[in-house]
Amino acid sequence: MNAASAKSAETRERILGVASVEFAERGYAGTSIGTIAEKSGAGKGLVQYHFKAKSDIAVAIVRGAFSKAPFANPLDGGAEARGVAAIVASIRGVSGAFRDDVRVRAAVRLVREYDVIPVTFPTPYVGWMARMAELLREAVDDGEIPPLSDYDVEGWHLVATFTGVQETSQRLTGRHDLPERIEQMMALQLPRLGVRDLERYLGA
Amino acid sequence: MNAASAKSAETRERILGVASVEFAERGYAGTSIGTIAEKSGAGKGLVQYHFKAKSDIAVAIVRGAFSKAPFANPLDGGAEARGVAAIVASIRGVSGAFRDDVRVRAAVRLVREYDVIPVTFPTPYVGWMARMAELLREAVDDGEIPPLSDYDVEGWHLVATFTGVQETSQRLTGRHDLPERIEQMMALQLPRLGVRDLERYLGA
Repeated sequence: MNAASAKSAETRERILGVASVEFAERGYAGTSIGTIAEKSGAGKGLVQYHFKAKSDIAVAIVRGAFSKAPFANPLDGGAEARGVAAIVASIRGVSGAFRDDVRVRAAVRLVREYDVIPVTFPTPYVGWMARMAELLREAVDDGEIPPLSDYDVEGWHLVATFTGVQETSQRLTGRHDLPERIEQMMALQLPRLGVRDLERYLGA
Repeated sequence: MNAASAKSAETRERILGVASVEFAERGYAGTSIGTIAEKSGAGKGLVQYHFKAKSDIAVAIVRGAFSKAPFANPLDGGAEARGVAAIVASIRGVSGAFRDDVRVRAAVRLVREYDVIPVTFPTPYVGWMARMAELLREAVDDGEIPPLSDYDVEGWHLVATFTGVQETSQRLTGRHDLPERIEQMMALQLPRLGVRDLERYLGA
């Protein structure tokens, strides 16, 4: 990458960072290209050089957030954890990102507002569901849990349960109790899946 | 109720019915008092006689939807079902309402859009959570399940799980697979709570 394109990439990132803060706080309708241009110091011309419309910025944020580990938890990345430990790490990682990563928070809010945004977002959940199903198979292969009757259903249900815990914690406490509720969720759900030594996987 | 107030109550209901269809389809921002006045045939004057602002209509719909059985499942109503059977009936009832009752669908969308609506909605979930905790205690009293370690946590978690299943089904299939996913959810979660004879409670 030469100096000019490095600078251009840096500007694009700065625009996405500022836009994430705005989208996360004010939602899609409450955020304008003008504000993003001003707060990023890029100016309207440069913003529009990188993104034709506000909806393009929204798509870039959503795509970026959901392609990131721990959602994707890429198989080719030689992840250290396997099976149950990887499930726990993935759930804790996503939960942490919901609280701490403004781009993920922006993406979640944008996806929630999808019906007022004139673009098609990448389908949420399905990648993570498939990954969960795979990790459950791994856990069976490694003898951590007994075989399950339907891995796709379990992967679907695990992600849906996480989604509900996240959503409920957000509405009732602004995600204040999310870490505690996520640990509760795993302590309730992992035994159901046949995990015996809970302490081993959930212990600090 | 005299004829005039019966007619007035009927007009109010008609306004709420029309507004529910609009809110459910177009969201809060996409719905105007003008359209509600026109489609209900009430005219702007009458609409504003009943509701000072669009946000008052939204609050009335949300309040009405969440005070209804099966969310509330009132204790004084002499409900036929108890314990596990009542939990199953309540979950199926709420799930059915999400699909079939346009006022509930409107309420759910309005609550989802709460951050762009300038009013305070009644807090969602908590009434249903308390009711679930109570039904779990009933199930223990009736010998249907063994004692649980924390009824409030279980009530919270059950409602959060339902919420996630609902939300996920809505996003991925427009609630097309909701009935099936809800039955799956109960088949996975009830044994976790110690329900043994699943067929007895979930059988058609």
